Amino acid sequence: MPREVRERQMLDAAVEVFARRGYRAASMDEIAELAGASKPLVYLYLNSKEDLFSACIRREATALMEAVRAAVDPAAPAESRLWSGLRAFFAHTAEHPAGWAVLSCQARTHGEPFAVVVAELRQEIVDLVTRLLAETADGAAAAGERDAGGAGALPGHEVSGLAHALVGAAESLAGWANDRTGAVPTAKETAATLMNVAWVGLENLMNGQRWTASARP
Amino acid sequence: MPREVRERQMLDAAVEVFARRGYRAASMDEIAELAGASKPLVYLYLNSKEDLFSACIRREATALMEAVRAAVDPAAPAESRLWSGLRAFFAHTAEHPAGWAVLSCQARTHGEPFAVVVAELRQEIVDLVTRLLAETADGAAAAGERDAGGAGALPGHEVSGLAHALVGAAESLAGWANDRTGAVPTAKETAATLMNVAWVGLENLMNGQRWTASARP
Repeated sequence: MPREVRERQMLDAAVEVFARRGYRAASMDEIAELAGASKPLVYLYLNSKEDLFSACIRREATALMEAVRAAVDPAAPAESRLWSGLRAFFAHTAEHPAGWAVLSCQARTHGEPFAVVVAELRQEIVDLVTRLLAETADGAAAAGERDAGGAGALPGHEVSGLAHALVGAAESLAGWANDRTGAVPTAKETAATLMNVAWVGLENLMNGQRWTASARP
Repeated sequence: MPREVRERQMLDAAVEVFARRGYRAASMDEIAELAGASKPLVYLYLNSKEDLFSACIRREATALMEAVRAAVDPAAPAESRLWSGLRAFFAHTAEHPAGWAVLSCQARTHGEPFAVVVAELRQEIVDLVTRLLAETADGAAAAGERDAGGAGALPGHEVSGLAHALVGAAESLAGWANDRTGAVPTAKETAATLMNVAWVGLENLMNGQRWTASARP
């Protein structure tokens, strides 16, 4: 069997075991057994438990980013890019629940070398969403100036905060969808749930309509 | 010095060191030094690094929940409960950045005993938000029936998904606000950022107005 096939089987097994047991409790014996390989071969190919975990993280992060990128047409309007990106994100996390568990839970621990890889993936997604929102905000501001009733551009720090809120909401929803038993929502339903709450608010905000506490009960 | 004062100093120091170094890299020497206590005394009072970390998690989780609960008047309308709760949440996480770092990053690692405490805290907050949204949805549905143009109740699983989205957005925003250098937003500004996007969408949704992909570009 070619090495790359063997390695893929080892990584598949490792992702499953890390997701099920957690990094610390996962044993190389269980990973080797699930991969149908000997433990010395796992060590020979992937060096150590830490290196194996890092390889899992890198592979799962790359696959998730590629799935999202492939779904988004850069020439489409912001709203449909967000909608396509969210559907791809929820479809990928639903199809790879162990990979998502490893990325979202295990790998966030501060101070560990692999945390850096996950932080970079997250930053890449946040940057994507930030650009999307900034572009929408600029478009709305330009339209507002033309109409002379102008909203003015949304401040950059607020765009950045909104991007973080949206990414956090999507991460949390992906975990919720994967944890559900019984009626599991489709990726499209989960993406629509988020668009339902987020897009209308974003659109209003881009057009200068803010929620105000004082006008409310 | 009474034991409870000493223990509080040790926990204060431990939260700082765990936030800065991560659980694994944190040393009991550094914690003892920062607490101005001897290492044997730290072990005598708090037993082990793992028990010390668990005690930190429990204390920080309890303080955060209490701050949110104290700010929310159970008799107020849902919208102002959400607004008060969010402001209290962002104020507390901003005032206790190390505590929030420990809760949100270190403590999520699957398969560790302390992960259970954090999962319980998170579930408690999700339940609070779920009840708030369910109540709003029921109120809107009842009003809709009265008006006979009724929206009908929002399905329970969608309310649950929305609550998870909102909690994830708030968690992510708290990290974003604490990581900012320069113009740090106030808790009120961060809470308003979230209300801006979330509340309008929620209100529409409760009244049966959904975002639809087909009607959009």
